[in-house]
Amino acid sequence: MELKRSWVGAANSTETEFPLNNLPYGVFSHGDAEPHCGVAIGDQILDVTALEQAGLIREGVEPVFNLPAWNAFMAIGPEAWAAFRAHLTEILAEGAAAQDRLTPYLVPQTGAQMHMPFAVSEYTDFYAGKHHATNVGTMFRGPENALPPNWLHIPIGYNGRASSVVVSGTDIRRPWGQLKGPNDSAPRWAPSARFDIELEMGAIVGVPSDGPISVDQAFENIFGYVLLNDWSARDIQAWEYQPLGPFQAKATATTISPWIVTTAALEPFRCATPEREVELLPHLSDTGPMLYDIDLNVRLNEHTICTTNYNVMYYSAAQQLAHHTSSGCPMRIGDLLGSGTISGPEPDQRGSLLELSWGGKDPLSLPDGSSRSFIEDGDRLALRGRAMAETYQIGFGPCIGTLLPALEDPFKG
Amino acid sequence: MELKRSWVGAANSTETEFPLNNLPYGVFSHGDAEPHCGVAIGDQILDVTALEQAGLIREGVEPVFNLPAWNAFMAIGPEAWAAFRAHLTEILAEGAAAQDRLTPYLVPQTGAQMHMPFAVSEYTDFYAGKHHATNVGTMFRGPENALPPNWLHIPIGYNGRASSVVVSGTDIRRPWGQLKGPNDSAPRWAPSARFDIELEMGAIVGVPSDGPISVDQAFENIFGYVLLNDWSARDIQAWEYQPLGPFQAKATATTISPWIVTTAALEPFRCATPEREVELLPHLSDTGPMLYDIDLNVRLNEHTICTTNYNVMYYSAAQQLAHHTSSGCPMRIGDLLGSGTISGPEPDQRGSLLELSWGGKDPLSLPDGSSRSFIEDGDRLALRGRAMAETYQIGFGPCIGTLLPALEDPFKG
Repeated sequence: MELKRSWVGAANSTETEFPLNNLPYGVFSHGDAEPHCGVAIGDQILDVTALEQAGLIREGVEPVFNLPAWNAFMAIGPEAWAAFRAHLTEILAEGAAAQDRLTPYLVPQTGAQMHMPFAVSEYTDFYAGKHHATNVGTMFRGPENALPPNWLHIPIGYNGRASSVVVSGTDIRRPWGQLKGPNDSAPRWAPSARFDIELEMGAIVGVPSDGPISVDQAFENIFGYVLLNDWSARDIQAWEYQPLGPFQAKATATTISPWIVTTAALEPFRCATPEREVELLPHLSDTGPMLYDIDLNVRLNEHTICTTNYNVMYYSAAQQLAHHTSSGCPMRIGDLLGSGTISGPEPDQRGSLLELSWGGKDPLSLPDGSSRSFIEDGDRLALRGRAMAETYQIGFGPCIGTLLPALEDPFKG
Repeated sequence: MELKRSWVGAANSTETEFPLNNLPYGVFSHGDAEPHCGVAIGDQILDVTALEQAGLIREGVEPVFNLPAWNAFMAIGPEAWAAFRAHLTEILAEGAAAQDRLTPYLVPQTGAQMHMPFAVSEYTDFYAGKHHATNVGTMFRGPENALPPNWLHIPIGYNGRASSVVVSGTDIRRPWGQLKGPNDSAPRWAPSARFDIELEMGAIVGVPSDGPISVDQAFENIFGYVLLNDWSARDIQAWEYQPLGPFQAKATATTISPWIVTTAALEPFRCATPEREVELLPHLSDTGPMLYDIDLNVRLNEHTICTTNYNVMYYSAAQQLAHHTSSGCPMRIGDLLGSGTISGPEPDQRGSLLELSWGGKDPLSLPDGSSRSFIEDGDRLALRGRAMAETYQIGFGPCIGTLLPALEDPFKG
C-alpha cells in the first residue's frame, strides 16, 4: 500500500485521485481529435491511442485503443490486461528511461472532454445494500416485513436499460410519467415530482461467459468499476412496478464516472462482505474478500448529503455476476452491473433522497437554509469515491449530473 | 389482398408462407459461405448479398447486406425500406425481365442454415394480453384481484436479456435455479421443474429515438415482427420476482423465428385493439388500427396445444413502444419488444403451459396418452404464425426449440 512514484509530478501528490497505483481507463477528446482511449496519471491523460499509432507501446499488445471505448481492450483478456498495466507502471515510474519519449503524449486533463469509457452491452441493477433495502422496505411495508423473504438468499436484481447510461457531466432532463397517488382516483400524465438519485458502484464484465460461472470465476471476469448514479423517478415507480418491477422509473438516465478503475488497482482495498445472517447456498457462498473499501460521498450542489463506504454491501459484484449467470444467461464484454444503493447504517449515510428525507416525510435541511424531499430543478448531484491508503488514494473522477426542468408536455405539438 | 404472382413458382402456392406479398428478411448460410442477408420467396432464398456484390441491386440502395444482421439495412431508414421492397416486388414478379439474371441468386431453403436475423440491441418483454394477465392473476391472487390496478392504464413491461435471444432451431437447456416452494423451510439449488413457454410476437425497432415519441411515430419506427417464445422458469420466478420483477426466470433463452416479416407486408392485416374498458391517457390512446390479424398456434411435439390470434392483445406494439419512450428512454435500432403472452378467451387458446395446466393443477392431456403440467425433457415446442388472406398467407417460418435435460450441477467440478 505504498505510493508508487511517477515522473509525472502531480501523480505523487497526496491529493490526486490518479497516482501511478491507479491508472484508470477513460475515453477523451481534445482539440479536433475524435474520442479515443486514454489513461489518467496525476493531472494528465496518457494518450495511449497516439502511443499505439506511433508504435511506442511494446510488442504483443494488440492495436485496440483507437476507438471510443475500452471494449476491444477488454476482449484481449486478463493476461493482456495485466501485461499492459505492468508496462504502463514501468514506463510511467520515476526514473523510467521512457520519460522523454512519452512526455509529448501527455494531455492535460483540464483541456480534455471525457466521454463514455466503454460501450454498455446490457445493464443490470441490483438491490444488494441491506440498509437501503431495510429502509425502503420499512417505509413501504413496515419494519416487520422490511426485507423480502428472498433477500438474504439471492442478490435481487432486475435488468435496466443500457441505452440510458451516460457519462458524468451529461445533464439530466426531469421525466414525465404516468403517476397515481394512493388517494388519486385515476392516473395522470405529469412530470415526476419525486426524482431521486441512487449512489452505487458499477462493475464491468470484461470476459464473456456462456453458462453458469462460480463466484471465483465471476471475480476474475470483472474488468473494473465505475461510480454509478441510478436516477430514479419514485412516483413513476410506485405506480408501475407491480408486478414486474421498475421500468420507466429507471429509464431516463444512469450516470457513470468517466474513469474505469481496474480490479488490479483496487486489489489492495479488498475486504469481506458483512457476516451472513443466514448461510448462502454453496454456489453463492463467499470464497474470499471480494468487496472493496471505498469511501463514498454525495454532494447536492455544494452540500455533502451522504457519506458512506462500498464495504457495507451485503453481496459482492462477483456474487451478483455468479447469480446472474445461474440460469445459463450469457454475459458479454461491456455488461454493467449496478451494486444497488449503498447506504450505511446511520441516517447521514443513506445513498438516496428517498431514505434521507424518509419518503419526503422528513425533508433534508441544507446548510444554505433550503430543504429537499427530492431533487429540485437545477440541482447538481455529484458522487465521489476514494479508496484510501496511508500514502495515496485512488478515485474515479466525479460522477455528476444536473437536473434540468421537465420539457413542456413532450406529447403535445 | 390479392396474391401477387411471382416467376418463382412455389411462391404462388396457397400453401407457402412466402408469396411475393411477404418478402421477409433473414440471415442464412449455405455451403462455406458466412452468414449473410437473404429474402424468402416461395421455397427459395434470394441471396441479396450476392446480388449487391454483383451490382445487380439498383442504385441508391446502400451496400448493407454482407453482414450477419439486417441492422445496417434498418439504419438507412423507412424510405429506403419502402424503395427496396418495391424493387424486390418488381424484379420477382411474374414476367419480370430480371428473371434470367436473378435465377442464379436463388438458394433452396432446404439447403440453407438460418441464423439470428438481426442483432438484438436490448430486449423488453411486455404483459399486454388481458386473458393471460387475468388467468395468471386469478391463479396467484384470486379472481377479484386478477388484474393489477395499473394494468388497464399502461402496458406493463420489464427489461429482459438481449444476450439470451436465439434463433429457431437452437436447443434450450433446462436451467438450474434457486427454488423455494411455499411449504419449504429454505430455498434449494435445483433444476427448474416448472419450465414453460410463452407464445408472443416480437416487434423490432428500426428507427432510433432519443426522447418521448407518440403512438403514431412509434408505429412508423417499427421495422417488422418475428414470432417469439419467451421461455420461462415458473419456479425460479415465483421465488425471485418480488419486489423487482422476473430476472433469472427469463434469462435462459428467448427463441425467435428466422424471418422478419415487415410492417409493409403486414399492412393488409391491420386491425384494432379490443374495446377499452377504461379510457387511456391521451399519449397512449389508440389512433388507428395497429394490431394485426395473425393466426397463431403452438405444437408440443406433434400435438397442437394452443390456437389463438395476435388480435386479442389489449395493447399494440406501437403503444408499448410509445410508453417505453415516455421517460425519455433512448431506443435503438434492433431493440426487440415482446408482446406478452398471447392467450385467447377459451381454454385451448392459452399461450403458456402455466395457463393450459392451470398451474399444474389440471395437467394437459395429449392425444398420445401422455400429459403435461410443464415442459418435459426432450419436448419440442413449435410456434407458427400466419396472416391469412383469401388467396394467400404470409408467415414467419417456425419458431422451434427442443428442451434438453439439465446439466449435472453446473457449479460442481
